[in-house]
Amino acid sequence: MRATCTFQAVRPQTLGLIGLGAIGGSIARQVKSQGAGTGIRVLGWSPEPTERAIAAQEGALDDAPPRALDVARAADLLILAAPPTANLAQLEALGPQLKRGAFMTDVGSVKRGIVARAERLGFSDRFAGSHPLAGTHRHGFEASRPDLFRGAVVYVTPCTEGADAAREIVHFWQDVLEAEPVVLDAARHDAQLAATSHVPQVVASLLGDFLARHAPPGSSFGTGAADTTRLAASEPALWTEILLMNRDEILPALRKLEQSLGSVEHALEAGDAAALSDWLTRAAAWRSRLG
Amino acid sequence: MRATCTFQAVRPQTLGLIGLGAIGGSIARQVKSQGAGTGIRVLGWSPEPTERAIAAQEGALDDAPPRALDVARAADLLILAAPPTANLAQLEALGPQLKRGAFMTDVGSVKRGIVARAERLGFSDRFAGSHPLAGTHRHGFEASRPDLFRGAVVYVTPCTEGADAAREIVHFWQDVLEAEPVVLDAARHDAQLAATSHVPQVVASLLGDFLARHAPPGSSFGTGAADTTRLAASEPALWTEILLMNRDEILPALRKLEQSLGSVEHALEAGDAAALSDWLTRAAAWRSRLG
Repeated sequence: MRATCTFQAVRPQTLGLIGLGAIGGSIARQVKSQGAGTGIRVLGWSPEPTERAIAAQEGALDDAPPRALDVARAADLLILAAPPTANLAQLEALGPQLKRGAFMTDVGSVKRGIVARAERLGFSDRFAGSHPLAGTHRHGFEASRPDLFRGAVVYVTPCTEGADAAREIVHFWQDVLEAEPVVLDAARHDAQLAATSHVPQVVASLLGDFLARHAPPGSSFGTGAADTTRLAASEPALWTEILLMNRDEILPALRKLEQSLGSVEHALEAGDAAALSDWLTRAAAWRSRLG
Repeated sequence: MRATCTFQAVRPQTLGLIGLGAIGGSIARQVKSQGAGTGIRVLGWSPEPTERAIAAQEGALDDAPPRALDVARAADLLILAAPPTANLAQLEALGPQLKRGAFMTDVGSVKRGIVARAERLGFSDRFAGSHPLAGTHRHGFEASRPDLFRGAVVYVTPCTEGADAAREIVHFWQDVLEAEPVVLDAARHDAQLAATSHVPQVVASLLGDFLARHAPPGSSFGTGAADTTRLAASEPALWTEILLMNRDEILPALRKLEQSLGSVEHALEAGDAAALSDWLTRAAAWRSRLG
């Protein structure tokens, strides 16, 4: 892909990371561990001094200054990798501190809010949102990996009149992290992710909570229950923010799910084998296609 | 385990299988592929002649007679491994054909119905139900494996006054297939499995059907959505039977799930971060303990 680029991709000399959890930590690790990242200086900040120290010790960072401000001022590309609400605050605090010509993105899983905030703050020339589909239910720097983004879809959501900034962010994901960026309008992104990611999280947590409260003591669980609830182990604080930020998209989706659940209950009450079979067949056909 | 057995375990000289799908086929394969099965003759029947021929060709069967009756008459242990409704019919048709001193079990995931039927038919001396927690969303003989039961929990559900038959069945699972049998009352089994297996299947299929109908065209799905819906690929005909057979246990469970979904929707509408966080935290704590 790099060989076919027709214009100069952004190759920040200094990459700044605000947040060193699974995503921020993995960006740092991958940049420092691979050829493409050679020569890129990585600065990182986390509100937890221990996390900063460990990331530096493990070679994921060249420096871990004690203030987020020092990372923002030095960076050619600043990546906000804190939880969504903290990213909004950091956007506002650090955006005005960027060097001339520097760019900024975030990695949160809801995009309308932060894109709108960037537009209001006049950052359309320097900010585009990002959302790598490389989430994990594990969290913290200890969950970071040096290859999390290779081949992963990364949505990039531009500001209005922010095509230039978006193009730079796209090329960072593509050239430095070998990901597969896809440019998408923030509103379409949030509608899509409500269905493909946020509703699955709700479903997994509903089932996890149900089993926590209602499975008979001593029950054994097969791989089916384990897989269906894997997402339930995700970070509660992070997901509380995501669900609230995207609730206008998530709520109508949950109501559709509730209607389907009602139909299944009705079919069970009525002993309607044909209705159950049609429903199961539709779901099985979709899932088999997903592979 | 074998060394510590204090009484003579059943070691059928001839094992009969009615049904050669993922479970029946895996039993045949494991018996024919391992030391413990040495000397056991395996006869198998499937309503599909091709499946019988393939199972025999692949060395999972010593013989594949064209009639189920011929398998039943020759077997020291007959295992009904067809879908649940077919197992009920086979129990009735083949039970009276067993040799004196032969035993019979099934491998279905709902147990009250077949245990009650065996009691009514006077088979308490020869039948106990079985349910290996070794299901897979894949099906047919091509999904069978030679090690599916090793270390797997297998519930054995005795008939009233059927302790002797249950003990023989327990020892078959333990000694020949190296599984971990657990004796459980059929009613307790069905209540437990409604929660731990049947509700997860409903949840995975609900989400699969939702995504089939409502995910925007061209959406990418991460591992979260893939894992949460993996069970949705399960065989629709089989699950229609299971859900209907255990509906008196499954329906109250689904109503509890519906109530929780309503509470989550209410918390989202109200912007109640504390309620969402409590719910997510409860589910995460349970899932983290599951490992």
